[in-house]
Amino acid sequence: MGTQNWQEYLKDRQDRWIEELSEFLTIPSISALPDHAGDVQEAALWVGDRLQAAGVENVEVLPTEGHPVVYGDWLHAPGRPTLLVYGHFDVQPVDPVDLWSHPPFEPVIRDGRIYARGSSDDKGNMLAPILAVQALLETTGTLPLNLKFLLEGQEEIGSPHLPPFMKAEAGRFASDVAVSADGSQWSEEEPATWVSLRGLCGLQINVRGPSRDLHSGLFGGAVQNPVHALVRLLDSMRSPDGRVLVQGFYDDVREPDDRLRSELARVPYQEEELLASIGVTETFGEPGFSTYEREWIRPTLEINGIWGGFQGDGMKTVLPRQAHAKVTCRLVANQHPDRVVRGVVRHVEENTPAGVEAEVVVLDSSSMPYSIPIDHPGNLAAARVLEELYGRRPYVVGSGGSIATCGLILEHLGIHTVNLSFGLDDECAHSPDEFFRLASFERAQIAHGRFIEVLAAGS
Amino acid sequence: MGTQNWQEYLKDRQDRWIEELSEFLTIPSISALPDHAGDVQEAALWVGDRLQAAGVENVEVLPTEGHPVVYGDWLHAPGRPTLLVYGHFDVQPVDPVDLWSHPPFEPVIRDGRIYARGSSDDKGNMLAPILAVQALLETTGTLPLNLKFLLEGQEEIGSPHLPPFMKAEAGRFASDVAVSADGSQWSEEEPATWVSLRGLCGLQINVRGPSRDLHSGLFGGAVQNPVHALVRLLDSMRSPDGRVLVQGFYDDVREPDDRLRSELARVPYQEEELLASIGVTETFGEPGFSTYEREWIRPTLEINGIWGGFQGDGMKTVLPRQAHAKVTCRLVANQHPDRVVRGVVRHVEENTPAGVEAEVVVLDSSSMPYSIPIDHPGNLAAARVLEELYGRRPYVVGSGGSIATCGLILEHLGIHTVNLSFGLDDECAHSPDEFFRLASFERAQIAHGRFIEVLAAGS
Repeated sequence: MGTQNWQEYLKDRQDRWIEELSEFLTIPSISALPDHAGDVQEAALWVGDRLQAAGVENVEVLPTEGHPVVYGDWLHAPGRPTLLVYGHFDVQPVDPVDLWSHPPFEPVIRDGRIYARGSSDDKGNMLAPILAVQALLETTGTLPLNLKFLLEGQEEIGSPHLPPFMKAEAGRFASDVAVSADGSQWSEEEPATWVSLRGLCGLQINVRGPSRDLHSGLFGGAVQNPVHALVRLLDSMRSPDGRVLVQGFYDDVREPDDRLRSELARVPYQEEELLASIGVTETFGEPGFSTYEREWIRPTLEINGIWGGFQGDGMKTVLPRQAHAKVTCRLVANQHPDRVVRGVVRHVEENTPAGVEAEVVVLDSSSMPYSIPIDHPGNLAAARVLEELYGRRPYVVGSGGSIATCGLILEHLGIHTVNLSFGLDDECAHSPDEFFRLASFERAQIAHGRFIEVLAAGS
Repeated sequence: MGTQNWQEYLKDRQDRWIEELSEFLTIPSISALPDHAGDVQEAALWVGDRLQAAGVENVEVLPTEGHPVVYGDWLHAPGRPTLLVYGHFDVQPVDPVDLWSHPPFEPVIRDGRIYARGSSDDKGNMLAPILAVQALLETTGTLPLNLKFLLEGQEEIGSPHLPPFMKAEAGRFASDVAVSADGSQWSEEEPATWVSLRGLCGLQINVRGPSRDLHSGLFGGAVQNPVHALVRLLDSMRSPDGRVLVQGFYDDVREPDDRLRSELARVPYQEEELLASIGVTETFGEPGFSTYEREWIRPTLEINGIWGGFQGDGMKTVLPRQAHAKVTCRLVANQHPDRVVRGVVRHVEENTPAGVEAEVVVLDSSSMPYSIPIDHPGNLAAARVLEELYGRRPYVVGSGGSIATCGLILEHLGIHTVNLSFGLDDECAHSPDEFFRLASFERAQIAHGRFIEVLAAGS
């Protein structure tokens, strides 16, 4: 136990933390590639050792049906709440590796950034709360609340084995609130608290007509063309202005209240910049909602892929025997993936054009939509910490994407997860030359320490 | 000059003709494969020699920008009409060659059939009028009309170099009527005269949205999805019941008269057999017309292929940057491919959904629709010959497919082409184990001889 305060303790040791992060980043823990399963395991062991070194107790590398989970706790604050810290130590593949400026698992520090696969997503972010806890324990000898860690090794492949694991281990992870060290900040100057993530469900539609490809001259006009039938079917699912026409699709959607809408309206929106960044001339979508609302708190139905018949050069006069499409829906509170899928299946059944058969195959990887109240104590604590660190009030934002873990934690532990992470969109999280800003790394350490203090003080 | 009549002359020499056909069939004159260009040339020389042996004069192998055309004539019937005989000596590729029971260019005779690539399409059919002419010349010393031959070597690749050739050589080929020895009979017991072929035009539609594939979670709901836009655009081109909705599409269509409709209604139609043969449960198409009418004398718009976004296993949550479709139209008299294409281009321009760009690329291989009056003297002559040979009145039928040559002959020579050919649908014309019935081969020889006599007598 030192005499320094914990923030100075952290600041004074940044070189050491960067060295440790570099070591962590040399482990090629690519969860998607079976050849790297041993590396994911090695990363788990590294994380376990690091937790122990920080003063975390009861550290265990727990098996799942796939890659392991690392658990640890510090439970010496009786009567105080328990915080669950989430993060992941697996990383994305590195292809195409020849687009990297340096080997992806040989970290390079340049211009205040550390370059390596996993630096931003999520090893840098994930290490921050561990360092914060060490700093608190080393300088104060205690923590103001109880703490558990849920650090996993399969996030980048959609955490396929986490649901049964969480169900079986719900007692071990029981907590009062969770904080995610996986995610992003709004910008370097502007803080935000996250209040929603969209859920996801998907299906493939297979339309089948004749038993073989037909000559479009000899049979064109005589029988239904499966591509036309698929086009008809898909077009019947969405109005030209982007509203989903599947019956009952919006039934369970929680309409945003005025508080949420006015918070989202505060978030700076640069349409010109958005359009330029993706090369389109206008935004598009469900009438009556802003672009942020459509991205964050309104559900969608999108065709992700379509194929059938001839795709080569020139002309082939075929009436194809079948046609296919992949469709996914992004969901918002309180939709349920299963119910939405059932609605789409029913729509297909009721709207399949004459002369063909349509089959729906439900795709794996569904996830629940997630939302947390603006005024949730965890969000209020995060907002206070962020306001201290950035010197301004955080925006309230959502995310259009899906993170299964937040829904999973809510389902099995009955608690919400607060986002407190510091990746930035330009850090190439899933692309070559991934990097993490060292300033963000330090800010993340302080943020997690302060979050523990503020959350404990508020409870 | 013999004392036999010409029909006996033909019948007595069937073994010899089959031997000659076998020799012709050993030449692998595959027009689609550059490596076989020499074989196509060899087949042309073989045909030239055979014409000369038959007594045809002024035989020439004429160059085009691609494979050659064989010309020959017999012009010693002053004051009588001139008949142009059309056929082709090139053949389809043989892939997949391992599905053939015998090597495709080593003819095998079994059960009254000759098996080899090109036997039915078109070497057997094409040889028949040459043999008929020889029989007439050998037995009578003359012909009752003038004759010219137009035998080509690029039919199986769509005769790409024939249009400029025909334009340049219109004088040489000037005739009063043409007969095609390329095509099929209705059935072995039932004759038919053909009155129409459909034309063809095609285009590719490219819909482009964002400059890169987008994350469907982060951007879904914010911008137009090119696949949805393409689906909307294509769906706007055809009503759910199969009527084409492109403005002006039917403007030039010649509505069938009562005579034609009642003739087509005479043609036996076995819906159950049709459905079973292609594995569908019902026919489909433009209301108000029979299946034969929809196949033969009504135009269509068909999607031949569609693609965009993710086509692999499972789910990829992408909002694709582009989507594509191939569309062809089958045309009927008096539509013009260029005008129909212009109409579809205008439809795309006027109906492209907001937020994307749509480009139309016109595909080569358009062809004019073709029709010949039921009472055209050539058709009347063919009908009389067929009634003699089959013992029953021919049906009047059309074909949903496109044969560019008939339109080309009409355009450059101003004359109609009568179908007089004897392939059957089960003879695997473009598939492994192609064969030609020897009975059809003999029937074709007699038919062409009688056609010359009847046409001359009627004129």
